Amino acid sequence: MTLVCNDPARFTEDMLAGFLDANARYVVGVPGGVVRAHKTRPGKVAVVIGGGSGHYPAFCGTVGPGFADGAVVGNVFTSPSAEEAASVARAAHSDAGVLLTTGNYAGDVMNFNLAVEQLRGEGIDAHYFAVTDDVASAPRGEEAKRRGIAGDFTVFKCASAAAEEGLDLAGVVRVAEAANAATRTLGVAFDGCTLPGADAPLFTVPAGRMGVGLGIHGEPGVAEEEMPTAAGLARTLVDGVLGDRPEAPERRIAVILNGLGRTKYEELFVLWGEVSRLLRDRGYTIVEPEVAELVTSLDMAGCSLTVMWLDEELERYWTAPADTPAYRKGVSAIAAPVGEARSRHDVETAAAPVALAEKADDDGRTGGRLVARALTAMATMLADAETELGRIDAVAGDGDHGRGMVKGSAAARDAAAAAVDAGAGQGSVLIAAGKEWAAKAGGTSGVLWGALLTALGTRLGDTGTPDATTIAAGMRAGYDALIRLGGAAPGDKTMLDALLPLVETLEQRAAHGDTWTEAWRAAAEVATEAARATAELRPRVGRARPLAERSVGTPDAGATSLAMCARTVADCFTYITQGDS
Amino acid sequence: MTLVCNDPARFTEDMLAGFLDANARYVVGVPGGVVRAHKTRPGKVAVVIGGGSGHYPAFCGTVGPGFADGAVVGNVFTSPSAEEAASVARAAHSDAGVLLTTGNYAGDVMNFNLAVEQLRGEGIDAHYFAVTDDVASAPRGEEAKRRGIAGDFTVFKCASAAAEEGLDLAGVVRVAEAANAATRTLGVAFDGCTLPGADAPLFTVPAGRMGVGLGIHGEPGVAEEEMPTAAGLARTLVDGVLGDRPEAPERRIAVILNGLGRTKYEELFVLWGEVSRLLRDRGYTIVEPEVAELVTSLDMAGCSLTVMWLDEELERYWTAPADTPAYRKGVSAIAAPVGEARSRHDVETAAAPVALAEKADDDGRTGGRLVARALTAMATMLADAETELGRIDAVAGDGDHGRGMVKGSAAARDAAAAAVDAGAGQGSVLIAAGKEWAAKAGGTSGVLWGALLTALGTRLGDTGTPDATTIAAGMRAGYDALIRLGGAAPGDKTMLDALLPLVETLEQRAAHGDTWTEAWRAAAEVATEAARATAELRPRVGRARPLAERSVGTPDAGATSLAMCARTVADCFTYITQGDS
Repeated sequence: MTLVCNDPARFTEDMLAGFLDANARYVVGVPGGVVRAHKTRPGKVAVVIGGGSGHYPAFCGTVGPGFADGAVVGNVFTSPSAEEAASVARAAHSDAGVLLTTGNYAGDVMNFNLAVEQLRGEGIDAHYFAVTDDVASAPRGEEAKRRGIAGDFTVFKCASAAAEEGLDLAGVVRVAEAANAATRTLGVAFDGCTLPGADAPLFTVPAGRMGVGLGIHGEPGVAEEEMPTAAGLARTLVDGVLGDRPEAPERRIAVILNGLGRTKYEELFVLWGEVSRLLRDRGYTIVEPEVAELVTSLDMAGCSLTVMWLDEELERYWTAPADTPAYRKGVSAIAAPVGEARSRHDVETAAAPVALAEKADDDGRTGGRLVARALTAMATMLADAETELGRIDAVAGDGDHGRGMVKGSAAARDAAAAAVDAGAGQGSVLIAAGKEWAAKAGGTSGVLWGALLTALGTRLGDTGTPDATTIAAGMRAGYDALIRLGGAAPGDKTMLDALLPLVETLEQRAAHGDTWTEAWRAAAEVATEAARATAELRPRVGRARPLAERSVGTPDAGATSLAMCARTVADCFTYITQGDS
Repeated sequence: MTLVCNDPARFTEDMLAGFLDANARYVVGVPGGVVRAHKTRPGKVAVVIGGGSGHYPAFCGTVGPGFADGAVVGNVFTSPSAEEAASVARAAHSDAGVLLTTGNYAGDVMNFNLAVEQLRGEGIDAHYFAVTDDVASAPRGEEAKRRGIAGDFTVFKCASAAAEEGLDLAGVVRVAEAANAATRTLGVAFDGCTLPGADAPLFTVPAGRMGVGLGIHGEPGVAEEEMPTAAGLARTLVDGVLGDRPEAPERRIAVILNGLGRTKYEELFVLWGEVSRLLRDRGYTIVEPEVAELVTSLDMAGCSLTVMWLDEELERYWTAPADTPAYRKGVSAIAAPVGEARSRHDVETAAAPVALAEKADDDGRTGGRLVARALTAMATMLADAETELGRIDAVAGDGDHGRGMVKGSAAARDAAAAAVDAGAGQGSVLIAAGKEWAAKAGGTSGVLWGALLTALGTRLGDTGTPDATTIAAGMRAGYDALIRLGGAAPGDKTMLDALLPLVETLEQRAAHGDTWTEAWRAAAEVATEAARATAELRPRVGRARPLAERSVGTPDAGATSLAMCARTVADCFTYITQGDS
């Protein structure tokens, strides 16, 4: 949805005014669009790019040294008029002619060609060129019918760099043609976008489906498929682009993985890992790739892969510096000297080694094995409970509790197994598990669980079989560690709300002479009740906020998972005890 | 939705691998995160930033000269572990100590403080600092409880620039504290985001509503309000931030208008136009604002406004150059000289003057008034029909047809009125209207309607009263002009499919001796039928594509609007004729 808006009828004008205000160092407005804040120097061809708006940074975001001299700015997804194109070209022109260039859309082609006629009539040497990189929009042999999409960027960049280098108009046109001939793009869309002021999306893609080759304004594509994994998507994109490669011997390529607006950087990087591997597997060398939003479609979900096959000249233009509102390339003037490059050795030895091992006796080693079994049971239980814990956490927190508990407990299970193999007793097994839990889970729960296991392990030691009193004391030590770390208190709707009753019950039962398995079972039940009761608590920390109603009436995720772990451990030891008896 | 993904459990690892591959000139991976590709130079304090991922460019996207030395990368929305933070700090550290800094979240605070203890134990001079810029998360007087959101950027930037300048660790810490004390942010959210692998959003905001102060992981805010206009939103943000301004005399401010992911650049620029005006109205000077995505939350819809009050030192750090994967600032090494700055005069005189005026007689001026009345009726009709035309166009095209027709016809109406006032005849009125239609509407339909009116006006001339034969000939000339311009033919599902039957009917009726109003009425009816019949046509241009089924079964928007205009003109002249009789 395009939501931030005043009068939808003035959206483009308002957008342009804000853009010019924020980027006054780079650009000034002229009727029909923008030009650089500094005049085009004598002898330099002006490059004027353009098309409808809604594609930022395309097109006005790339006006500046090393890139375009001006951009014609049409209404959203609408070609500017011939008069607007001519106006921007006049303002950008110095004395060496002007290249006007857009993607290949009927409205742009008509209006910019009319502008060229008009400019020539005024004595300005003007030329128009339309980019045709979208392999999905027409088959091989009909390249001239293809649309221009993210390949606009490679073509505009190279033509602009050629103009910056001092080529004459014929030379700049030749470079634009060569860049276009060497560029191929395939795009996919997962969901549509909404025009300013519209109630409904311009188009939709069914949930769980992907439109292959769908245009950046929702124009029809070549196929609709089930949404693939990132690896599958990478194959579709790479196969599609390479399957249409130009007759070129070059093995060096410029690559753009372009986000359309709603498919975010993290997803693009996940995809890039797959795309870059596939491209290298096919023998290509990737030159200065761009993984970014360069040609968007409002908030459309989707992405595109662009490859430009590089000869020596195109590589020089692709890698040339540029300094524009939304795209900067080349060495910035950082005054301070930089350090020497890191070696592989530096990187691999950066992490400090993790130490382990204590002197355990047979009882301690038996205890270590029991701890490892309990941690395995916990990890299995938490893997099953991940979604539910995430759901509970999403009500009041950020929904990551399930994931963190699964990652942490799995790491703890593996570390415990390794420690058992190394002959560690219960204390060292717990400490190793706690360290890995904290390291792998991250987050608040990770560090708290790490501290809890570490404190317990430290108290239990690696020799002898701990009794109920020792275990209660170990859990109390863990509780104290959490209080020190967390700055929270019981009643704050955290895991402490379950841990404190658990510890207190352990202490009471131990004082009454219960075995530790009996004490633990009772404590786990009390903790479960306490976790449920957190649904009634209102968090003390921070302010009570209108939106926070949602955080009351739901049990705390941390308290819930602690109680679930306590029950799992109780079940595990009951099972072990029964199995042993 | 986070859609591009392999195994959700490995999303962060996959993301990081792709990020490192794409940005190998800037960064290398170390256990727990990333550091600059070049070692921190001796004597320079290392600045290590971090937190959970899902906020790109924050945090790993800003590692490089002028900015951070390393970034700790946690799982999505999850604090990294202490071990990870310590690992990255070790790798980034040279010999002058290290500042570790994150936003103020419990997990980050715990883990990074533990890392600091660990590092100090290893002899590394380490310090931790938590950013607290979010005014919505705790009231005045409890600033230390506030969360860190987009103000992370200003604080990290200033501390990093101070380190680059050579300050010692105490000095860098002092700058971080000063930047934080001078920074305030207020954010709003319009819709939630979805974690990788999740079926449902982490949280939602009801449609048409806005969560004020909602945190970047969906933490509760201060209020829920109806979604305002851009102007209203600007007031909420500016009032919220300035209402909490620090006790500072400074009138120079650094400003960030930050998009959270799905609220796109165009919307941010519309908003910036309002925000910058309000800030200047209150007497502030805005220094190098950033209107961009700097601290995102996956694909969350929303934005935030950050203001940092600048003293001389903070302004120097804010404006210092930086060169990182996602943020570059400062003069790039553009070899070619730039031209001189443009003056206001250059810009205002860039557009060529538009000429008008012919020699009209009384009949011609009467015709001019009739044309102006018809164009007024068309503009009124089209304004009513905008939504419907947009809906039809969205089925097969890009949904902008209604908007373009409204803009174009309104401009034509105004130009016609001005021409009538200047005493123009029917020909000049039509030519003036056509020119403005093309100039203001843009797009394909704009240039075509402009050409149609211009051709008709040229044929009708400014003297005498044209008869049915002359009008038919004028419309035929318009049709021919469209064929030359458009490269389309009847049957291609364009406005030609209605225009050709209209012209042919005009010609037939004129040959039979009908009056021009009779002929036009009949032609408008034929055109209406023809427009309806385009629903049965399959477009000839381009390939038949699986997804294109949607474009068959719906009438063409251009043909529909042409027929509607023809009917409106017929009604208008029938009314005029009856009124005159």
